[in-house]
Amino acid sequence: VKDKLFESLSEIVGSENVTIDPTDLYCYSFDAFSYPFIDKKLFKFRPTAVVMPTTTEQVSKIVKFAYENRIPVIPKGAGTSISGGSIPTQGGIIVDLTRMNKIKKIDVENLLVVVEPGIIDDDLNLALKSYGFFFPPDPGSHEYCTVGGMVANNAGGMRAIKYGATRDHVKSLEVVLPDGRIIRTSPSVLKISSGYSLTQLFVGSEGTLGIITEITLKLTPLPEHRTLVVIAFKDLEDAGRCVSEIRKSGIIPSSLELVERYGIKTINEILKGNIPEADALLFAEFDGSFDEAVRQAKRAEEIIKKYEIAYIRFIDDENEIERFFKARQGAAIRYIKLVPELARIGMGEDFVVPVSAVPKALKKAREIFEKKGIKVMLVSHIGDGNIHPFIMIDLTKKEEQWQKILEAAREVNNMAIELGGTSSGEHGVGISRREFLPKEYGEAVEVMKAIKRAIDPENIMNPGKIFE
Amino acid sequence: VKDKLFESLSEIVGSENVTIDPTDLYCYSFDAFSYPFIDKKLFKFRPTAVVMPTTTEQVSKIVKFAYENRIPVIPKGAGTSISGGSIPTQGGIIVDLTRMNKIKKIDVENLLVVVEPGIIDDDLNLALKSYGFFFPPDPGSHEYCTVGGMVANNAGGMRAIKYGATRDHVKSLEVVLPDGRIIRTSPSVLKISSGYSLTQLFVGSEGTLGIITEITLKLTPLPEHRTLVVIAFKDLEDAGRCVSEIRKSGIIPSSLELVERYGIKTINEILKGNIPEADALLFAEFDGSFDEAVRQAKRAEEIIKKYEIAYIRFIDDENEIERFFKARQGAAIRYIKLVPELARIGMGEDFVVPVSAVPKALKKAREIFEKKGIKVMLVSHIGDGNIHPFIMIDLTKKEEQWQKILEAAREVNNMAIELGGTSSGEHGVGISRREFLPKEYGEAVEVMKAIKRAIDPENIMNPGKIFE
Repeated sequence: VKDKLFESLSEIVGSENVTIDPTDLYCYSFDAFSYPFIDKKLFKFRPTAVVMPTTTEQVSKIVKFAYENRIPVIPKGAGTSISGGSIPTQGGIIVDLTRMNKIKKIDVENLLVVVEPGIIDDDLNLALKSYGFFFPPDPGSHEYCTVGGMVANNAGGMRAIKYGATRDHVKSLEVVLPDGRIIRTSPSVLKISSGYSLTQLFVGSEGTLGIITEITLKLTPLPEHRTLVVIAFKDLEDAGRCVSEIRKSGIIPSSLELVERYGIKTINEILKGNIPEADALLFAEFDGSFDEAVRQAKRAEEIIKKYEIAYIRFIDDENEIERFFKARQGAAIRYIKLVPELARIGMGEDFVVPVSAVPKALKKAREIFEKKGIKVMLVSHIGDGNIHPFIMIDLTKKEEQWQKILEAAREVNNMAIELGGTSSGEHGVGISRREFLPKEYGEAVEVMKAIKRAIDPENIMNPGKIFE
Repeated sequence: VKDKLFESLSEIVGSENVTIDPTDLYCYSFDAFSYPFIDKKLFKFRPTAVVMPTTTEQVSKIVKFAYENRIPVIPKGAGTSISGGSIPTQGGIIVDLTRMNKIKKIDVENLLVVVEPGIIDDDLNLALKSYGFFFPPDPGSHEYCTVGGMVANNAGGMRAIKYGATRDHVKSLEVVLPDGRIIRTSPSVLKISSGYSLTQLFVGSEGTLGIITEITLKLTPLPEHRTLVVIAFKDLEDAGRCVSEIRKSGIIPSSLELVERYGIKTINEILKGNIPEADALLFAEFDGSFDEAVRQAKRAEEIIKKYEIAYIRFIDDENEIERFFKARQGAAIRYIKLVPELARIGMGEDFVVPVSAVPKALKKAREIFEKKGIKVMLVSHIGDGNIHPFIMIDLTKKEEQWQKILEAAREVNNMAIELGGTSSGEHGVGISRREFLPKEYGEAVEVMKAIKRAIDPENIMNPGKIFE
């Protein structure tokens, strides 16, 4: 059925770049957030149309058309959100930005790179590598997530502890506002102190304030050397204490990753390794010049040795380090694959607590899930206090488990907030964490809402996300 | 005269913490911005009252009172703004925050420090030093400026090239909104991705959106060692090219400071040194472990040697480094002291251009000022592209010169903007750079104004600043 909406959008981008085909609309009705597969209420949402622009001008015209007709607009990258950030809960036009995936300029002179939002994280880094630079944020989905999505959600990853999250690398954005106007959030310079930082306001706004159509990132020199120390701790809380001590000592690791007991088995499988059974496995990476990386690793070792450990290994070979990190990332996924009836659920999966509260939070989170009989593997960007409970649902009993998972997720998020933390360290709020915002921010949520109203008075930009 | 306003404010903070004494009001009628001393129109502004709160609750009550009575509120720290950020151009209540100067918590466990806005930058760093940490931003006024002012203006300094500006260190703020409500902009964690970043919106908002009453900063480990390389270049543009090449090579200096020809003479005087006459003096600092700092300095030396230099010196002694940086900071001030009729003028003094445009911008800026017969010394955080023309006015001829300085400042700022830069790298907009905002931001200024209206609908918070 070629309806009026199809015709109007086709005029802007050509009919080959619009779809209202029910099969397509079905595919665009969800993202990596698993809730819709279980909650039938969410499962029914469909976009009214999907459009695939290739230029900012097209995006502007699409949004202007939507604004005039009061149709919701949902920007979408690779759909790797596990908070439901791109689910069309109020219908509307999904603007698929994956065709806007060019690197516009690698400007080594000015230490900047200009990209379109649809470029894949790894593709960008591959291009930067030959210049000796990189874009440090590395979410678990770095092989397929878009940089636009990373900006919209302020993605983090394993290197955030040293290099910061996506926010810390964005220097300027081109944005299509909810009425179709195109703005640049700031001049593209390394240092600026004029006016409000619209750049920083749009980072992490999850598509609710406008569509990001161009991104200027600063370049970071690739470290010359990396040293990875892998340690198995007999006690999970000890691992937390050790991390806290390393951080306090002034050492700045480039990664501090923790995988719980269950993960060791699968990591061994992936690596064909023989790390002994233990409560927790810590990946501590140090980078810089060769001397610097090795020296920091040695300093960390002095701290680590004070704890009861079952295994320690130093790795200086880049390929071997990559192999270990791949195993770390694959640990939970692999575990699921071993047990066919299990599926991963993204709920309560991204909380952060102050670093000092990490040991307590690890223990408490385990208790919360175990009490409800939910299988969970705690994986953690532990140096930032960011804990990812990797929840596994038994698909054969999902109806009974769903309510329990919802309750447990609520309990861990509330625990994190009570400890002075947040429900989201790097995945964003989307639809899955909206209820925690008032508790986390109090009256400040009203300020956020006032900003949303001021910039998007008709509430057409990704409505129903972030705020309830 | 004890008027009604005095009585109302006295009820909140006690009469000893309020003043409407004309002498006091005179003293609070300006800051370090020099314009009012010359333009009689600006010189006449006076606050209606000055109040010195000691708690957030008092600030809240003061603002609520002002809100109900539609009285402008001007937050003020040490008054070191050279953009007129705290000049009461519309009268109103100046809230002097210098009595709120406590360090509330040095939380090494969580790598955070919590301070009141009135604390002096150097006092904070002195307290952090014994823990092995520091707060890296170091504006020229670090001995007397307040951290609250640094946050409000997103202050930078010499280390911004490696450690970022103030923005990059702020994790959470407590803010009194324009109606007196108290909010916390976010939980105090190292990593967060929930909701809009109000923290980053308030950083650099120059008191126009609310009063910052508490600041949570992340702690940065003090580097173990610093190595300073001081180089005299025969040619100014060569210095610019060399800096660009160092940056491109992937070396990350902790400072890259440039002083022009005139400065060398005064630096020699201060140091009792014998640096030969040259077009430009470059301070390149490298920090980290001893090996790392020295190694980076050596790598930089290889690049530097390709240029015609008149002098190079490597300094590894901390005290000697401090002595050199003090001389760098004092260069222009000292020059003024040598010539009694000169006074410094802060106009067009903070522009930024892309790093690649630095050589061109240095040359162009000199031409602009010289053509108008204005004495200028170009000092620069050159690694960020941030250039400070230190303009000197002949007090005996200030009436004739004033118009010329205004024109030259406009010319350099416009040049910077045309080169893709900004009129302010670290000093803020205040009243002195408002006219450049539309040119720098275009339509985006309307978004900033919409945010201002949404958060401060009665326009009582530092009115007339940032926007014209």
